[in-house]
Amino acid sequence: MAVKRPRIAVDAMGGDHAPGEIVTGALRAQAELEADILLVGDPARLQPLLSLHQHRMTLVPAQEVIDMGEEPLTALRRKPDASITVAMNLVRDGQADAVYSAGHTGAAMAAALLQLGRLPGIDRPAIGVSLPTLLPDKSVLLLDVGANVDCRPKFLNQFALMGSIYSQCVLGIASPKVGLLNIGEEASKGNDVSVRAYQLLSQNPQIEFVGNAEGRDVISGAYDVVVCDGFVGNILLKFAEGFGRVIVQLLRDELPRGWRGQVGVPLLRGNLRRVKQRLDDAEHGGALLLGVMGVCVIGHGSSHAPSVFNAIRLATEAVEQGVVQRLQEKVGALTRRDGR
Amino acid sequence: MAVKRPRIAVDAMGGDHAPGEIVTGALRAQAELEADILLVGDPARLQPLLSLHQHRMTLVPAQEVIDMGEEPLTALRRKPDASITVAMNLVRDGQADAVYSAGHTGAAMAAALLQLGRLPGIDRPAIGVSLPTLLPDKSVLLLDVGANVDCRPKFLNQFALMGSIYSQCVLGIASPKVGLLNIGEEASKGNDVSVRAYQLLSQNPQIEFVGNAEGRDVISGAYDVVVCDGFVGNILLKFAEGFGRVIVQLLRDELPRGWRGQVGVPLLRGNLRRVKQRLDDAEHGGALLLGVMGVCVIGHGSSHAPSVFNAIRLATEAVEQGVVQRLQEKVGALTRRDGR
Repeated sequence: MAVKRPRIAVDAMGGDHAPGEIVTGALRAQAELEADILLVGDPARLQPLLSLHQHRMTLVPAQEVIDMGEEPLTALRRKPDASITVAMNLVRDGQADAVYSAGHTGAAMAAALLQLGRLPGIDRPAIGVSLPTLLPDKSVLLLDVGANVDCRPKFLNQFALMGSIYSQCVLGIASPKVGLLNIGEEASKGNDVSVRAYQLLSQNPQIEFVGNAEGRDVISGAYDVVVCDGFVGNILLKFAEGFGRVIVQLLRDELPRGWRGQVGVPLLRGNLRRVKQRLDDAEHGGALLLGVMGVCVIGHGSSHAPSVFNAIRLATEAVEQGVVQRLQEKVGALTRRDGR
Repeated sequence: MAVKRPRIAVDAMGGDHAPGEIVTGALRAQAELEADILLVGDPARLQPLLSLHQHRMTLVPAQEVIDMGEEPLTALRRKPDASITVAMNLVRDGQADAVYSAGHTGAAMAAALLQLGRLPGIDRPAIGVSLPTLLPDKSVLLLDVGANVDCRPKFLNQFALMGSIYSQCVLGIASPKVGLLNIGEEASKGNDVSVRAYQLLSQNPQIEFVGNAEGRDVISGAYDVVVCDGFVGNILLKFAEGFGRVIVQLLRDELPRGWRGQVGVPLLRGNLRRVKQRLDDAEHGGALLLGVMGVCVIGHGSSHAPSVFNAIRLATEAVEQGVVQRLQEKVGALTRRDGR
């Protein structure tokens, strides 16, 4: 029996560089990945971009777009034909297996909750991103990075389980090491929420909780999953972005100095490009919205084609590995045990 | 009239590399700064380190040391002759103008509160650190980075005032721009505490509040002061440390590749050293404990002599600029207006 190719609904209208960069990334995904792309958006704007290429993508019309400044729920109500809603409905109706959008994150989350619904047993979906670590080829999944700004301890426990299942399914890590983002190693350290979350995590038999992770440990490579409140996670993720820019600037300032710099920098151009590439890769192509009844990948608003491609690949892998089904199976057990 | 030289009580026993590195940094401070050093610690361990040098430092004996694992208040009670307590008492009794310690941060804070007391009008002292920004020669003061893990909105408002006064006094910035660390620009963004803090900050006439600062903006150079809960601040500060290490590793991995790398790296050695230096500088030498009745500079536990020197210089400047007196004058007005 032939395995069905994942069908990815791509919101072609969301993001700072939509639809151009989204279409370019989607074209590459269609060509290189074992997936079928459903491009959702305004045909009048998409057709001219597609006409130059041979492609097998399906165009699904959606006449409206939700802008970055809009209040999500109001916007979704007022624009029933918004590209993000149309894309989510494709998944809800079984015509697609996953959604990718680089548009308004709040709107994508709200549309996912409205059209797909929450995973039974999960109080709040979380956004997870993969960050590179000090160890080559080893990443860490940080969640939540912005879906929930005031978390209760049991939410963090649910994030830990979702993160673990994701790491097992998609990354093939047998027993993912889970850390709780905190300000010290001891169980008693941290704010009220983190002290109580520590207790829940350390009693959760479905995960391998290895203790508190301090800020400097997040990307040390010692953890596969680090859980935190979406307020802290979002600040941390964006700080990493800003820090990356400072580093690139620092290298541009300091390296070309003097005659040695003038001679040395051209020699190192290729290697420096690779450094910049690895820093750029650190700016995640896509984040997973975990805890809804479907695969949703949320892209950075500023995504260019390479990020779009990476994000669609992430969505494809999540579908292939059956992340949502695995989450459904395992999450029930947690809820039945932990009523808090 | 001769201006009195600041007298800095240095806890020689605190820190991972105490007393050796502390003494080395203090010797340099005594030689290069317009300050007098009172070296506090065990004479049996300090004398051998000093005997090799000509110096004018005063040695103040203290027989006990608080170890990193100890619970601060219990330890302070059980060890009345701890170096950090003796150092604080020198300030309390008018024999010194400032304290520097790279030892147990919690113990230093507790000792400052017990021996010096809180600044009237300040509910909670905060720890502030200077971070470099994308703009050359421009730094940003981030506070709190760990003194308070569950902040009320009025604490953040007090941090903003203290940070502003500090920036005016020590950095000579006429009207420091204050940002609130948050996950979006709008006043309505963030968690419960940050939404309420935004209101207080925007109504505070003693500061120039310019709005929410997202993670990526902290080190953009757009802010002179960024205020946050000590939980978030501590995680951010330590994350920056970890990130710096990842960058250095990345450069070590990528730059020497290929024959061009082998030729180019030796040429760039000096410039690369400067890059590393600027990254190391980013690891603050010392943080200020603002909101107690005296100047207290808290060093990183892993401080080596250059950090010790920088931290003592910071303490000296804070004394010279009368930071504590300025805080005393200005903080009263805030408290009378804002009862929350």
